[in-house]
Amino acid sequence: MTRQELVSQIKSKKSFLCVGLDSDISRIPKHLHTSDDPIFTFNKAIIDATKDHCVAYKPNIAFYESLGASGWVSLQKTLDYIPKTHFTIADAKRGDIGNTSKQYAKAFFENYDFDSITVAPYMGVDSVSPFLTYENRWVILLALTSNKGANDFQHLQDDGKPLYQHVLEKSKEWGSEENLMYVVGATQTEYLEQIRKIIPNHFLLIPGVGAQGGSLEEVADKTLNADYSILINSSRSIIFASEGEDFAEQAGEKAKAYQLEMEKYFS
Amino acid sequence: MTRQELVSQIKSKKSFLCVGLDSDISRIPKHLHTSDDPIFTFNKAIIDATKDHCVAYKPNIAFYESLGASGWVSLQKTLDYIPKTHFTIADAKRGDIGNTSKQYAKAFFENYDFDSITVAPYMGVDSVSPFLTYENRWVILLALTSNKGANDFQHLQDDGKPLYQHVLEKSKEWGSEENLMYVVGATQTEYLEQIRKIIPNHFLLIPGVGAQGGSLEEVADKTLNADYSILINSSRSIIFASEGEDFAEQAGEKAKAYQLEMEKYFS
Repeated sequence: MTRQELVSQIKSKKSFLCVGLDSDISRIPKHLHTSDDPIFTFNKAIIDATKDHCVAYKPNIAFYESLGASGWVSLQKTLDYIPKTHFTIADAKRGDIGNTSKQYAKAFFENYDFDSITVAPYMGVDSVSPFLTYENRWVILLALTSNKGANDFQHLQDDGKPLYQHVLEKSKEWGSEENLMYVVGATQTEYLEQIRKIIPNHFLLIPGVGAQGGSLEEVADKTLNADYSILINSSRSIIFASEGEDFAEQAGEKAKAYQLEMEKYFS
Repeated sequence: MTRQELVSQIKSKKSFLCVGLDSDISRIPKHLHTSDDPIFTFNKAIIDATKDHCVAYKPNIAFYESLGASGWVSLQKTLDYIPKTHFTIADAKRGDIGNTSKQYAKAFFENYDFDSITVAPYMGVDSVSPFLTYENRWVILLALTSNKGANDFQHLQDDGKPLYQHVLEKSKEWGSEENLMYVVGATQTEYLEQIRKIIPNHFLLIPGVGAQGGSLEEVADKTLNADYSILINSSRSIIFASEGEDFAEQAGEKAKAYQLEMEKYFS
């Protein structure tokens, strides 16, 4: 998907919501466990209930990989079911030496037809570049993450600037606003304005609203620009809004509530 | 596998060689492509030819993941075929927020029965800890990698110390010499002595000998200790020593040559 297509979806839906399909088998409603493919059955219902309110879906690959071969089948079926109007993110946090990252790119952009993949920056340019050679596919690079461990290394200072800023400044030369986004946690609100100074136009993927405690309003205020180039992700607070038979309905309600909060930013 | 068992294997074989099963489908000999499972057929022959000369096998997961569902089947068959005497490494470079890393740990330590997994440090403690809760399983954390991109961020200095040293110093508190190893590239010889000062006893997994240009002798001189706690990995220079029908024989010869180079360090 191109940047223009994604921006156009956001503006037409008045939504920059991404739904995280962290479909943990131990948390999906019990009545689905008798289905042939409980994960896909769950995802299908979640997608049906939320697709009008969001512009993107982000399966976290760990929840599929942990199920062995059947998990990869559920992932493929889920990806096939997501409407082509929606941007898809393989939240995989891959990254390896050049010839190996090339294989990961093949996995997620050729075998699976994802629009984008999250990538870890630690190994530098040759671990990221192979993903950037695909037309209209995106790298979403970890910059400042939403978790507690983000404090261990991402704020280390070199030359007066924290590591995550070095990651932003160096890596933005590797791609463009058309194929490179950044992960910035919603729990990191005090750093968002500084981040927008370095990358005013790049898309940000912002997880951490909901279960992790980030505020949608605070995040939107500090990161929105003319193109609305942000994707705010919520996973657990939407997909596990209810663990009963009304799980899909409740997920839809929760997604709609987020979309309504977002709508006020569109004039 | 425990540290004691691994050290004992190393001493008895006079080898600290790890064979990297980066079994790229586009590089395995043509005559194997008619087999039902070319990747497993290739790996099986490589394992038969090299097992007497090495103590560990390291499949890089990207080469299996890039093949879709069939790749995971080949990986499982390969893992089942590796003798229980050999240490197994899932070279996966995973890492995510806590509840997600827990899923990756489940994938590689429960669904697949790997002794260890490589993990990226960027997201900090909660991305690493879930892997350390399994008894006799290991995290192999990226510290200073062998690739060109290692220079982008791993040498940034905070408080007079580069990022990779902060990673070593902080993370060594998260685990012990019994469940935590580090990746240190063989191409990084000028830093190896400094690294050994910080972690004199931890196992090091050292890739980069062979195709990437690192010298076995230089690396061994600077990192060996009383327990011989290093694993020197070679992938392409062994498994693709020949792309003809004699590929396994040539791989065996190459592995044996490495083992003979290693033997001189055992008194």
